[in-house]
Amino acid sequence: MSTIVRVTVWNEFRHEQENDKVRNLYPQGIHHALASYLEKVGFNMKTATLDQPEHGLTTEVLDQTDVLIWWGHKAHHEVQDEIVARVQQKVLDGMGLIVLHSAHFSKIFKTLMGTTCDLKWREAGEKERLWVVRPGHPIVEGIGEYIEIVKEEMYGEFFDIPQPDELIFVSWFEGGEVFRSGCTYYRGNGRIFYFRPGHETYPTYYHPQVLKVIENACRWAAPVSTTKPTFGNYKPLEPLHRL
Amino acid sequence: MSTIVRVTVWNEFRHEQENDKVRNLYPQGIHHALASYLEKVGFNMKTATLDQPEHGLTTEVLDQTDVLIWWGHKAHHEVQDEIVARVQQKVLDGMGLIVLHSAHFSKIFKTLMGTTCDLKWREAGEKERLWVVRPGHPIVEGIGEYIEIVKEEMYGEFFDIPQPDELIFVSWFEGGEVFRSGCTYYRGNGRIFYFRPGHETYPTYYHPQVLKVIENACRWAAPVSTTKPTFGNYKPLEPLHRL
Amino acid sequence: MSTIVRVTVWNEFRHEQENDKVRNLYPQGIHHALASYLEKVGFNMKTATLDQPEHGLTTEVLDQTDVLIWWGHKAHHEVQDEIVARVQQKVLDGMGLIVLHSAHFSKIFKTLMGTTCDLKWREAGEKERLWVVRPGHPIVEGIGEYIEIVKEEMYGEFFDIPQPDELIFVSWFEGGEVFRSGCTYYRGNGRIFYFRPGHETYPTYYHPQVLKVIENACRWAAPVSTTKPTFGNYKPLEPLHRL
Amino acid sequence: MSTIVRVTVWNEFRHEQENDKVRNLYPQGIHHALASYLEKVGFNMKTATLDQPEHGLTTEVLDQTDVLIWWGHKAHHEVQDEIVARVQQKVLDGMGLIVLHSAHFSKIFKTLMGTTCDLKWREAGEKERLWVVRPGHPIVEGIGEYIEIVKEEMYGEFFDIPQPDELIFVSWFEGGEVFRSGCTYYRGNGRIFYFRPGHETYPTYYHPQVLKVIENACRWAAPVSTTKPTFGNYKPLEPLHRL
Repeated sequence: MSTIVRVTVWNEFRHEQENDKVRNLYPQGIHHALASYLEKVGFNMKTATLDQPEHGLTTEVLDQTDVLIWWGHKAHHEVQDEIVARVQQKVLDGMGLIVLHSAHFSKIFKTLMGTTCDLKWREAGEKERLWVVRPGHPIVEGIGEYIEIVKEEMYGEFFDIPQPDELIFVSWFEGGEVFRSGCTYYRGNGRIFYFRPGHETYPTYYHPQVLKVIENACRWAAPVSTTKPTFGNYKPLEPLHRL
Repeated sequence: MSTIVRVTVWNEFRHEQENDKVRNLYPQGIHHALASYLEKVGFNMKTATLDQPEHGLTTEVLDQTDVLIWWGHKAHHEVQDEIVARVQQKVLDGMGLIVLHSAHFSKIFKTLMGTTCDLKWREAGEKERLWVVRPGHPIVEGIGEYIEIVKEEMYGEFFDIPQPDELIFVSWFEGGEVFRSGCTYYRGNGRIFYFRPGHETYPTYYHPQVLKVIENACRWAAPVSTTKPTFGNYKPLEPLHRL
Repeated sequence: MSTIVRVTVWNEFRHEQENDKVRNLYPQGIHHALASYLEKVGFNMKTATLDQPEHGLTTEVLDQTDVLIWWGHKAHHEVQDEIVARVQQKVLDGMGLIVLHSAHFSKIFKTLMGTTCDLKWREAGEKERLWVVRPGHPIVEGIGEYIEIVKEEMYGEFFDIPQPDELIFVSWFEGGEVFRSGCTYYRGNGRIFYFRPGHETYPTYYHPQVLKVIENACRWAAPVSTTKPTFGNYKPLEPLHRL
Repeated sequence: MSTIVRVTVWNEFRHEQENDKVRNLYPQGIHHALASYLEKVGFNMKTATLDQPEHGLTTEVLDQTDVLIWWGHKAHHEVQDEIVARVQQKVLDGMGLIVLHSAHFSKIFKTLMGTTCDLKWREAGEKERLWVVRPGHPIVEGIGEYIEIVKEEMYGEFFDIPQPDELIFVSWFEGGEVFRSGCTYYRGNGRIFYFRPGHETYPTYYHPQVLKVIENACRWAAPVSTTKPTFGNYKPLEPLHRL
């Protein structure tokens, strides 16, 4: 637990290059904004983006990653299935995965959930208030009873996901909707955290409490050195047919 | 609830045609053995097999199916991805799915779970005892504290599945292993039940209590007429920006 | 499943006798309003109130009850511990329990939950919108994507309950809060449903969709005839010390 | 997380004073055996026993306790209700609680669970094998695929507990039974771990892997410094009645 957690931020990195508003907010990309913060609070950081070879997620990079953060929106379909399968296996082997905002529709999240991960949405710059419904969880260390974001995109229920193993946040939206906005899942040896906020046209990833939650999630999702299960044909541990 | 539940049994139907021992046990196939029983207890039955066009799972057949039972073993890879996607969507729309024994490795189950669904196994004709750990659940109506099967294949933990929404049975094996052998999952509007017993070389699908569990599961998994969620862009229900 | 479900509505029945506003809404008591509706939709109804001997919950009454509905608010402390223990045992033996609104603080609910069941509240006649987060569940049969109640008391998170086995509804409140407003729990052989709406000064128990949810919950919570577990000293099923 | 976790081991401490066999195994009591090990691996230890004033669990002691371990068997009824209520509140406020073996029937565990916590049992010195069904969980750090205990008391299903939030271990017993032998629960701000092994007539609390699990559980159950929820009357965060 004393070793430094190695976090890789993966970003689609298209909006920032195509849209002035987004570029102004995140001049070097959302991945860079997140990595800068996380580096300051003690993580060993890497970044990777869609247009790099193998989307920047080579076997070497993943082997040096304890926790992978994923942000994508408009180009989910460009992510190669082979890389998705590679990331999925890494998660099942113990790598943590933090899925942010519009990455609810990423191939990796849909693959790990087994559902459509569809939802309602509205881009109207409205208020979101994320209520903590799981105090005592490491992901909300240092967070108050709720987080308020002045302007965000709305996501509304029904959110087509498996019931979360742990429901951490529920969001209230100005327009009348609610959303399960902080959800954990345990899959194989790995831990997954879906966290809703972060539309690219708002400065959400500069919000201190949003950053604090992501920081906490990175610590929480880091792998524990437990035994990797064995599978396949297995000899009996006790004598058979003795009756 | 008074209408008759329509159940389709899907079977790979290869062992029965290739192996004398299996053919002797299930001369018309595992699907036929299950359908015969289920018809007698009041279901409206269909069967479908791998080698039929579209594996027998045309849109028409699925539209007339409330609950789909799935048995497969040696030819999972021959099931077309397109049909798997069709069945997955049907489950998310509300169709029940009963996954039996070696179908833990079927494409449809792995897709819905998001994990490898791998496990330990041994074919040694040993005793299995399935203990009920969820009394009061409709799936164990009429079942005692445990079910005993004199000879079965062993499946052992770790079983790489998401933690079940409801754990119904845990198996004890003569050789020293345990297994989560009855597991429910809720996905979208649909219900899934994984039930372990049923290796093709044993007469497990003539065991009265095994059949009773499958019967109960078919009733439990039948769709409830609830509202199908809507997704996508959504207008506010309350006035925005009024502050 | 074809037999008629026997439901007993328990009501504290004090507000209706002491407060004109409440009496005007529920002249014969909340229990009577609920029982009238439920009788019409096919249940076999009984009522019981705090000031009856044994609070109307004699062993005889409970033995003839499949599902017990509980409404209480200002006199929780007057309910005798002995009756609470009796009801708890009945639930563990398979009786369904529907806990309404302010009964979150009833002795029976707190006893079954093991937590304080505390929450935030505000009586300001504001709008509540209950979003369905579990489509496909029998409790929301015939219910749309949400239920709107024009005026209700607010309950806000954190609601100090165990994580629900199934989260069915999440409420949005005009004043900025959210609440897990429909929660199921499985305890022993019994099923419990907590349903938030129903402050005594509003006509909530005449709202067609609120009534429909309670009706659905009564069907869902009715006991299944499964084996009652045995406890205590137990002889081995397999020979010991054979190694 | 860098501060030393303060653990208090509570023991009934009667068997050790009344029974030679137990005294020979645990000359200074089970609490002392556990505390000795835990001190060596870095915890700040205290012990407390039934016959001390306030059972050794004064407000002062509990205020200095991050994690409380509980072992009891024959004198559960002698624990005062007032102390049980005090411990329960501490758990809801964030203190960790490790419940061992026969403490399944302790007042504190039954109070926190809301069920009878009853089970089957047999004292026959048989083999127990605890299988890990949740690899990747901090509680199984350093543990292999299973733990074997040569001689233990048998506990069998049905174990009348709420479905665990996380099921970590499932036990296989020589005599043919299974048991959910490692279960976590989140209640309020606190974490609870029930761990089955530890009958007083066997040297179970010298078993290196049993001790390792308890050590891991103490680290896992230590409180996280999150916000304590507020309850009661609450002012609106948004303007009401604006429509």
